[in-house]
Amino acid sequence: MSIRDYVAERLDRPVTRNFITGVILFNAVVLGFETSDAAMAAAGDLIIFLDVLCLSIFVIEIALKIFARGFSFFRSGWNVFDFAIVAIALVPATQGLSVLRALRILRLLRIISVAPTLRRVVEGFVSALPGMASVFLLMALIFYIAAVMATKLFGEAFPDWFGTIPHSAYSLFQIMTLESWSMGIVRPVMETYPYAWLFFVPFILVTTFAVVNLVVGLIVNSMQDAHAQESNAATEDYRDEVLKRLELIEKRLSDRGSRGD
Amino acid sequence: MSIRDYVAERLDRPVTRNFITGVILFNAVVLGFETSDAAMAAAGDLIIFLDVLCLSIFVIEIALKIFARGFSFFRSGWNVFDFAIVAIALVPATQGLSVLRALRILRLLRIISVAPTLRRVVEGFVSALPGMASVFLLMALIFYIAAVMATKLFGEAFPDWFGTIPHSAYSLFQIMTLESWSMGIVRPVMETYPYAWLFFVPFILVTTFAVVNLVVGLIVNSMQDAHAQESNAATEDYRDEVLKRLELIEKRLSDRGSRGD
Amino acid sequence: MSIRDYVAERLDRPVTRNFITGVILFNAVVLGFETSDAAMAAAGDLIIFLDVLCLSIFVIEIALKIFARGFSFFRSGWNVFDFAIVAIALVPATQGLSVLRALRILRLLRIISVAPTLRRVVEGFVSALPGMASVFLLMALIFYIAAVMATKLFGEAFPDWFGTIPHSAYSLFQIMTLESWSMGIVRPVMETYPYAWLFFVPFILVTTFAVVNLVVGLIVNSMQDAHAQESNAATEDYRDEVLKRLELIEKRLSDRGSRGD
Amino acid sequence: MSIRDYVAERLDRPVTRNFITGVILFNAVVLGFETSDAAMAAAGDLIIFLDVLCLSIFVIEIALKIFARGFSFFRSGWNVFDFAIVAIALVPATQGLSVLRALRILRLLRIISVAPTLRRVVEGFVSALPGMASVFLLMALIFYIAAVMATKLFGEAFPDWFGTIPHSAYSLFQIMTLESWSMGIVRPVMETYPYAWLFFVPFILVTTFAVVNLVVGLIVNSMQDAHAQESNAATEDYRDEVLKRLELIEKRLSDRGSRGD
Repeated sequence: MSIRDYVAERLDRPVTRNFITGVILFNAVVLGFETSDAAMAAAGDLIIFLDVLCLSIFVIEIALKIFARGFSFFRSGWNVFDFAIVAIALVPATQGLSVLRALRILRLLRIISVAPTLRRVVEGFVSALPGMASVFLLMALIFYIAAVMATKLFGEAFPDWFGTIPHSAYSLFQIMTLESWSMGIVRPVMETYPYAWLFFVPFILVTTFAVVNLVVGLIVNSMQDAHAQESNAATEDYRDEVLKRLELIEKRLSDRGSRGD
Repeated sequence: MSIRDYVAERLDRPVTRNFITGVILFNAVVLGFETSDAAMAAAGDLIIFLDVLCLSIFVIEIALKIFARGFSFFRSGWNVFDFAIVAIALVPATQGLSVLRALRILRLLRIISVAPTLRRVVEGFVSALPGMASVFLLMALIFYIAAVMATKLFGEAFPDWFGTIPHSAYSLFQIMTLESWSMGIVRPVMETYPYAWLFFVPFILVTTFAVVNLVVGLIVNSMQDAHAQESNAATEDYRDEVLKRLELIEKRLSDRGSRGD
Repeated sequence: MSIRDYVAERLDRPVTRNFITGVILFNAVVLGFETSDAAMAAAGDLIIFLDVLCLSIFVIEIALKIFARGFSFFRSGWNVFDFAIVAIALVPATQGLSVLRALRILRLLRIISVAPTLRRVVEGFVSALPGMASVFLLMALIFYIAAVMATKLFGEAFPDWFGTIPHSAYSLFQIMTLESWSMGIVRPVMETYPYAWLFFVPFILVTTFAVVNLVVGLIVNSMQDAHAQESNAATEDYRDEVLKRLELIEKRLSDRGSRGD
Repeated sequence: MSIRDYVAERLDRPVTRNFITGVILFNAVVLGFETSDAAMAAAGDLIIFLDVLCLSIFVIEIALKIFARGFSFFRSGWNVFDFAIVAIALVPATQGLSVLRALRILRLLRIISVAPTLRRVVEGFVSALPGMASVFLLMALIFYIAAVMATKLFGEAFPDWFGTIPHSAYSLFQIMTLESWSMGIVRPVMETYPYAWLFFVPFILVTTFAVVNLVVGLIVNSMQDAHAQESNAATEDYRDEVLKRLELIEKRLSDRGSRGD
């Protein structure tokens, strides 16, 4: 028990935190060099050695953390996040070699869990998501319906864009972002189906309106949070003060009223 | 009368609602499979049978609802919505075969009227529309004027883009979304009419400004609604409290004043 | 004098207003038909006659208004607007024939000055402009500087895009709207000048940031207007009530204090 | 000492300020003419002479300011800004000739430090930046990670777009602005790597969401500033009034209470 406490205390020290931050940033640079053919030709062994070294430090750190805190380690979302990111790098890279290697750079995301400022920003982002869940659900619905319709209507003539439901969904996402929607997709489609705009223009209007409503919701929520934090402190102090004084006056009047009788 | 009440009560039960939700989702999957040639080749008859089955359930449900509630059924916008969506599928699909088949997926929209969360989101969207009516009217006006002008100015040289008023309106909508407006449309037009930018750049500025104002209006409205809901409860309680106490003090003072005389 | 009053009173009647609205809308349809070759071939004389008829009605209306109100007619911005729009159609169309003909559709804008709803929207738009003046000035400054720099740096190699200051300004406006900025302009430029992104990426960031600030300013202004209108009525009534009662209590206390002596 | 004060007083006069403003604007026009081959052919010597004249005036002005205020001149950010802009033009233009010449137009930015309205706008912009620092840091992190991943995954097959980390970062910036992201980049990439959308679509969603959050933050901050300025004055006066009166009543009551004993 005393060893666990000792380790836990050591891990919580600012020195350890700064050291880990340093290792993450150093690892980021190392992984950056790994993308350069020239650097790999000149010092490939060193780069790979340094990467393995950084990874080893992370593995040891997390192993110690689990040792120190036991299963309660996994209760924090950020710890699970750290664990998953490091675990990715340990998966034996046999088949999808290059993809797994590319995923190793995700280790740099650990900087978020280490730096309180970034942590707060990400927590702010994540906390905004649940409020947007129903609009997301609605958009998923619109996308599924529109993808099925587009596949049935234009799939035969334009298999690359609307051949299957996933193809249609991707094309519709592109159209929603307004990228080349007309010159690239709708005008060519309209040469075969002149009334295609009756499908695409309402789709653009509806999805854009939904996205705008998402943003509006975000703004209103942030504003309410900010408003609540800011104004309430001063206002509530004042209100308590007024009510306290009114009560006092009342009490004094009733005291003297009873005494006066 | 008692049978109608019995049916109405049955239809309102959560079990019925969940069953209908399940059928809608199942129907969505079935209609999804219908877009796959492989799935249709393997089990086309089954897929079509299941689709007809789902449709029959919807028809029976709505028939029962109309039976149970009589004409008051049509008083709710959501009921009319359900009715119209199911009715589309019953239109004999002779001429525009593929379009009507494609419209059947709209049945999935029934999930909105069934799920309260989605219903609220859509009602929120729809309730925002009337406040935007006058800006929409203005934009329709701008589009009509700009379409007539573009047709007169550029129609002869660029019949594909500005040949008729509808062609121009579509091209102007594309330009408003900023998709390929310069490289795709205005630069080619400027090779024939070097001063075309005097028409298009103001058009972009005006329509973009109008759209921004729409969004600003949405934000202000949402904010006011949120503000009104949130702050008033607490504030009004406090205000009532203060006024009540002040009245009490006043009354006591005047009581004692009159007694003191 | 009495005739002028009679005319003024007649012009202000809802009947006259509705009649003018009808003529404007009818004129809009007529000018729409003028763009159709088929319609012009079938009934060109009638269409042109109807257009001249509408114009005559407008001319008479405005002449009567000027007669009725004298020079004070020109004090209202909307009257000047009406006058200018009608005057355009009377300019002899000799040289720039097609452009002047195209400008005649602007007459439809009179509907804005006639319909109070549209009028309020446009007045809202226009009233937002002065607050944005300094940001517009700053953007004009940025555009001029960037246009001069782009002309000097890339003008020789890309005369179509950056040959002169106006060419550069147009291209930079396109880049600000993000239309084909990279694939269409910056990537080709970077093949000749590899460091061109050092100019264009900051330009995009700065102008986008300025535009975002314009929108933020609009939102904050609208919000303040809405806030001021809404909350103050209720709050001020309450405040007056509280202060009045407090004064009353005080007065009573001091009365009885003096009487008590 | 008296000469320094005299110079400082002279420099602060509106006449001097207006004169400098005039020189800046005149210099802007001169530098504009410098981009025109026709103007340079007709009066190149005059144009260059006038430019040198304007520059000399600026140099003298800043030299006098430094003389008048000593080192405290450099304490104001705007003075450093003016100094740097003028200093650029004095760097001997031997190697990167055209770039340095192009930078001379930056002198026009001095108008910002001279005109109070523009100064306030820019100060407003700059003051908004620190609050956005942590989101910027997060975006830099996302960009670095995504650039390393894109280079590893797609660098070999698409060296022009993703060959090195800087190439990838530029392409990802283009994708974040949604310019030709699908038709120009992702669709071609997907022909080689069919699952490339699994990288790009989340990248678009995450970066767009981060940008939206930046804008939301800006709006909330501006709103709070505006709110604080506006409402507090009236509210605080009222609160002070209420508390003062309540105290008075209380005091009177307690006075009479003590007198009454």
